[in-house]
Amino acid sequence: MQYNISEKLVNMKPSAIREIFKSLTDPEIIAFAAGNPAPESFPSEKLAELASDIFTNRSSQALQYGITEGYLLLREQVTSRLETRFGIKREGNGVMMVSGGQQGIELTCKVMCNEGDVVLTEDPSFIGALNAFRSNGAKTVGVEMEDDGINVEKLKTAIDNNPRAKILYLIPTFHNPAGTTMSLEKRRAVYEICREKGLLIIEDNPYGELRFAGEDIPTIKSFDDAGIVVYCGSFSKILSAGMRVGFLSAPEAVFQKIVVAKQVEDVHTNQFFQMLCADFITKYGLDEHIAGVSELYRSKCELMLGELDKNMPECVKYTRPEGGLFIWLTLPDHICLNDFVKEALAKKVAVVPGTAFSPEESEISHSFRVTYSTPSCEQIVRGVKIISDIIKEMM
Amino acid sequence: MQYNISEKLVNMKPSAIREIFKSLTDPEIIAFAAGNPAPESFPSEKLAELASDIFTNRSSQALQYGITEGYLLLREQVTSRLETRFGIKREGNGVMMVSGGQQGIELTCKVMCNEGDVVLTEDPSFIGALNAFRSNGAKTVGVEMEDDGINVEKLKTAIDNNPRAKILYLIPTFHNPAGTTMSLEKRRAVYEICREKGLLIIEDNPYGELRFAGEDIPTIKSFDDAGIVVYCGSFSKILSAGMRVGFLSAPEAVFQKIVVAKQVEDVHTNQFFQMLCADFITKYGLDEHIAGVSELYRSKCELMLGELDKNMPECVKYTRPEGGLFIWLTLPDHICLNDFVKEALAKKVAVVPGTAFSPEESEISHSFRVTYSTPSCEQIVRGVKIISDIIKEMM
Repeated sequence: MQYNISEKLVNMKPSAIREIFKSLTDPEIIAFAAGNPAPESFPSEKLAELASDIFTNRSSQALQYGITEGYLLLREQVTSRLETRFGIKREGNGVMMVSGGQQGIELTCKVMCNEGDVVLTEDPSFIGALNAFRSNGAKTVGVEMEDDGINVEKLKTAIDNNPRAKILYLIPTFHNPAGTTMSLEKRRAVYEICREKGLLIIEDNPYGELRFAGEDIPTIKSFDDAGIVVYCGSFSKILSAGMRVGFLSAPEAVFQKIVVAKQVEDVHTNQFFQMLCADFITKYGLDEHIAGVSELYRSKCELMLGELDKNMPECVKYTRPEGGLFIWLTLPDHICLNDFVKEALAKKVAVVPGTAFSPEESEISHSFRVTYSTPSCEQIVRGVKIISDIIKEMM
Repeated sequence: MQYNISEKLVNMKPSAIREIFKSLTDPEIIAFAAGNPAPESFPSEKLAELASDIFTNRSSQALQYGITEGYLLLREQVTSRLETRFGIKREGNGVMMVSGGQQGIELTCKVMCNEGDVVLTEDPSFIGALNAFRSNGAKTVGVEMEDDGINVEKLKTAIDNNPRAKILYLIPTFHNPAGTTMSLEKRRAVYEICREKGLLIIEDNPYGELRFAGEDIPTIKSFDDAGIVVYCGSFSKILSAGMRVGFLSAPEAVFQKIVVAKQVEDVHTNQFFQMLCADFITKYGLDEHIAGVSELYRSKCELMLGELDKNMPECVKYTRPEGGLFIWLTLPDHICLNDFVKEALAKKVAVVPGTAFSPEESEISHSFRVTYSTPSCEQIVRGVKIISDIIKEMM
């Protein structure tokens, strides 16, 4: 049969990262490429004990259908944390559970965009979000990033140049892949621009809990009096990535449509793990556990930055994250990124080439992403040495 | 802000059934409306014991990201069962895990349909599927059902009348809501028509394992030499609905695109519960457990049919299912369905009005769906008496 695949999917390929992820089953590979949280960050023993209680005492609820918006107690706990920790108001917003932060991004695009609409993003941006927009027939257009976040003037130009721009997608805190954080001043400026021009903002904040240096900066959603921000969060980097439990807070009118869209995607998020998250929060709270996870990443990030400082030639630039999982490195123009990535993989170090994060697909990149989350300390030291040596040889 | 919701979502409302489901928290209500499996059908104790083993010995795998296609062992087990139990060939087909059967249906539509394309369905059909198609901008067009399945002549006419018809969505076995099963003759005829006309078939079979009377009929997918059938299945009615684990088998070219589309919806299905399903199958197999579940439904269905035979006035027609969860009743024309449904709810019996299952939204219905799965035996007896009495009074 000749398959007439839909226009929105026909040219889409599997995410380069997920494909690299498959190759990471080789235990000899140093996995600087993965976006996985550190396995030791998951509170396995506590979860095991709470899980056993749910199976013993509440299995018929945990194994049965739930409502689309999510498990009520957990929604309330999330609403409350969003309010106290991130300044996100209850009034005018609905909070729901989704099957990972990824689903919140995808649903928001589905609800807002017609085919041919434009989603503006930082350049580079998270590949999973870019592909979610494309899979809904939206066009992605990138706006240059600076160390303190998106270039505001170029954002204005991009809006003017794209009359069908409907959404601005941002990862303001501990950006993936760039590792940078948007300044408060820019957050306010970007919010005002979008309010004026009628764009909806998706504020994606999967790493926001993982600050290990510097001071908190208010979320964009915290000053959302006009109701133009959909905030996406996740438990993936805190409690478990494999359980696929995330959440979002959205202006009521958008929220109602997201509920409908989620209902037809997967009815509701895994009920058992929603209850497990709620029980964890009830019994232990999140603060102590998150402090431990952040400390873990602080020490691994410091180690990696120290090794980069020691080994990397000066012509290579890299970001110095204050939280999250990623460092973004930029090679000098004369080094071919593809050659470098291939050579690194041949020497058993996997990194993600910057091209994977390009909003516009044909773009050339000289950057690549590494993570310090899953590699061991020994692997961080050895892996940085390997990639530094390769670059030196290519200079 | 004025929200410009996408054209595909702007007129969609939450599923009437999920809304009714919310009202079912009232313990006095007899829940003939729910589509939930019986809680006693879930093997809670066995799952609890296996879950404990996963938490103890394999938690870092179970809590970490997995690959989009699903947990390898489970995929192999499902592939093997589809082959031996349902005659579905490995060759030329990919099998993947999805977050409930619902997601398989939604993804297939997303991959195949452009906005404005038409999905043909049985009339009535499963509301969750209808809304999944609509949420992707497809138009749903219904084709009349008979006791042995879709009316084949009217299917031909519908294809001719809808040049943009791209998918035929069917629930051939223990239909939801109709409770009927399509004959082998019609399955073959429908397959040939779709092959000739270039339509893809979605064969949705969430209830196929739950036969308690009559003889198995081959799946449409079992004679899919042309590669035009996407088969959707689920563990929701067997092991747990709340865990959201389903699967699909699709022709390789379509399969590859479904993987991409799933990746951007939720990355992958809950990893822990995929492992739990696999462990259950490894340790216990499915046959013995399913035999027990089917026996449970046989006895409850017989009870309900017996009570209907005893109490219902003759002018009310109803189907006699050989498996699955649902009975479909049709009132005489002069009784107003809405009045009946309201009166039943006032007397604490919830049923789903047929209008909820209409592919064309404005349609009038005289039918309603009841389930025998979740109500107790006492509730079945009392509930049937109540709705029979209401109908007698309305005659």
